[in-house]
Amino acid sequence: DKETTSSSADDVFANEPERSPLLNVKSQKPFNAETPLSLLGDQFYTPNSIFFVRNHLPVPEVNVDAYKLRVGGMGVRNVTYTLRELRDKYAHHMISATVQCAGNRRTGLSAVKVVRGLSWGQAAIGTATWTGVRLRDVLLDAGCDVNGDAKHIEFECLDKDMTGDAYAVSIPIEKALSEDGGVLLVFEMNGKPLPPDHGYPLRVIVPGVAGARNAKWVTKIIAKASESDSFWQQEDYKVFDPSSLPETADYSRATSIQETPVQSAITEPASGTVVDPDEETVTVKGYAFSGGGRDINRVDVTIDGGLTWHRACLQQAKSEGFNKQWAWTLWEVDVDIPKGRTGSMEIACRAVDSANNTQPEKGEHVWNFRGLLNNSWHCVHVDLKGGD
Amino acid sequence: DKETTSSSADDVFANEPERSPLLNVKSQKPFNAETPLSLLGDQFYTPNSIFFVRNHLPVPEVNVDAYKLRVGGMGVRNVTYTLRELRDKYAHHMISATVQCAGNRRTGLSAVKVVRGLSWGQAAIGTATWTGVRLRDVLLDAGCDVNGDAKHIEFECLDKDMTGDAYAVSIPIEKALSEDGGVLLVFEMNGKPLPPDHGYPLRVIVPGVAGARNAKWVTKIIAKASESDSFWQQEDYKVFDPSSLPETADYSRATSIQETPVQSAITEPASGTVVDPDEETVTVKGYAFSGGGRDINRVDVTIDGGLTWHRACLQQAKSEGFNKQWAWTLWEVDVDIPKGRTGSMEIACRAVDSANNTQPEKGEHVWNFRGLLNNSWHCVHVDLKGGD
Ligand SMILES: [Mo]
Ligand SMILES: [Mo]
Repeated sequence: DKETTSSSADDVFANEPERSPLLNVKSQKPFNAETPLSLLGDQFYTPNSIFFVRNHLPVPEVNVDAYKLRVGGMGVRNVTYTLRELRDKYAHHMISATVQCAGNRRTGLSAVKVVRGLSWGQAAIGTATWTGVRLRDVLLDAGCDVNGDAKHIEFECLDKDMTGDAYAVSIPIEKALSEDGGVLLVFEMNGKPLPPDHGYPLRVIVPGVAGARNAKWVTKIIAKASESDSFWQQEDYKVFDPSSLPETADYSRATSIQETPVQSAITEPASGTVVDPDEETVTVKGYAFSGGGRDINRVDVTIDGGLTWHRACLQQAKSEGFNKQWAWTLWEVDVDIPKGRTGSMEIACRAVDSANNTQPEKGEHVWNFRGLLNNSWHCVHVDLKGGD
Repeated sequence: DKETTSSSADDVFANEPERSPLLNVKSQKPFNAETPLSLLGDQFYTPNSIFFVRNHLPVPEVNVDAYKLRVGGMGVRNVTYTLRELRDKYAHHMISATVQCAGNRRTGLSAVKVVRGLSWGQAAIGTATWTGVRLRDVLLDAGCDVNGDAKHIEFECLDKDMTGDAYAVSIPIEKALSEDGGVLLVFEMNGKPLPPDHGYPLRVIVPGVAGARNAKWVTKIIAKASESDSFWQQEDYKVFDPSSLPETADYSRATSIQETPVQSAITEPASGTVVDPDEETVTVKGYAFSGGGRDINRVDVTIDGGLTWHRACLQQAKSEGFNKQWAWTLWEVDVDIPKGRTGSMEIACRAVDSANNTQPEKGEHVWNFRGLLNNSWHCVHVDLKGGD
């Protein structure tokens, strides 16, 4: 793919795009940043300019006129598309889908014990409308068969590491080919051309699956008998039990992350907010999301450590059907402040999804050395001013 | 359906079958019983004679020569089959699937606060091979269309309450019609004719979905725009937050249970077992299961309240593919007993499924007034004999 990318080892970050100063930067090279938490819960669709960015490698320079998408692999005819050919040949579809980094809320685990990875807060997640063509249509057209020998679909991308290895990941073939799986090859995000940081010119959206599999800058789609051999499939995105250590972890026994567990977080009030107890209630807002298209049944909020729960009102996109809720739930609840209570007050939330899975209470029990998939209860502390 | 059932109000339990004396009976009329826990983890397939029985109503008397299955409803042609016609017309399929009562492990919640329902321990669950025809084949043959106005498939059954209302429940049409959903109309259980307590002559197996939807003695299959109007769909099998009370619960705001959350329990040692610490290790065994076809990634066991975890070895059926693991996982781990430890020792387990959902620690946080879907960590206490 020399024709579509150009970078020297000296200048691998020469192609980084301009970015909003509002983004909360976690690392510059590669660029990683999250949405300001205070803005995250304000709108159902996260604006492109402040959508979290999770880049594993430098942003590739793309000459869109020379760009090619190649389809091939086990039991699949080799087909090559220009971007225009892909757009012209297949029906366009739009979905509302949330994308969440597998490292979202990692700081809740690093507070327990040191972990490896970027220090994501609660905002390595966002929701957009995504427009593109169905991966299913492209694969079926190339002769791909869910009952054949291929079991995984690999995406190879234009972003490359120092040794020239391209970012690559895979998803199960059933998800790729399912009429209900919702997987799209997208060229628009919230009705605008896909920004460079989000995969221009072509990204795969694998709804209900961790961000890492929603590969950006996709240039090859390959049917395979086994998962991608890449570091990002075989090692980087695997969860171990809390007692496993990186030095001795057996990656071959661990499963690569696909669907994410039920999740929720409080976006308002911010931790440390001073609340006037004379106001009698505190308005608590946040998001909830579950993987695999599972809807959110309920979000409960507690200010007494789980003794009593307050049920939140939910704002949800219309689900496309059973296990096809690809977008998050925003929620809000007014909680009465007990009369006379002063000092620090902990507010915690937890969601229940349509499979009745719920979040574990404590970060220490989901702790893993990579700090992945923290879905323990999210807690914020507010200060109740003393009465006078 | 007068031709297929006969019972007078005086004698509604006249048709109860003979049952194994090994069953652990929870109620006689209607009959409800679980497998002895000590036998549950011994075999991957639970023998028919000791498979848990969850009957909502008397076992119906069935004249199989007069039995009819009727298919109809919204957008579906009316079709009627005798049992022989159904067996002869459609290809036979067999799946290995676990069925779990939504009330399994209720005693863990009644220990927190009183709940309504049968006092199920850990053994209202079992695994069998089930042989029958695909519901999908029968529905498609009758013209049922997943993109039509019907959104749910209702099963009406031969078991009736005192007022003559038949047991009825429904499942989403996507599950009923999915190639991957695994839903079968079965007439064999573990290679033998379906026993009367398990739905003879015809039961629907809805793998990955709560037992209540795996309707027994099915006689009508009806495509509908909305869920079944029955008590068992609209009220009985809904989960509320721990602060909701039965008197004020708003059933219209709650979702009827379909897929069940990730679950596990210890089958050995039994609670109260005396363990000789000179043996150095204790062998812990159990089962794990998740709804929706999600596989079990991991089972972790702790003897120190979650400070350190011991990873169990898993015994699993070959999955039929991504999100098509319909059978439970049996697991086993030898845990070292700390030198010098005496007295009571709590052993707890928790599973992680392929969507990385895990079990909540405490029963009080999943408590609901019907005591449904308890999937908090399962704990047993053993006694370490003092050294001499
Ligand atoms: Mo990620
Ligand atoms: Mo049940």
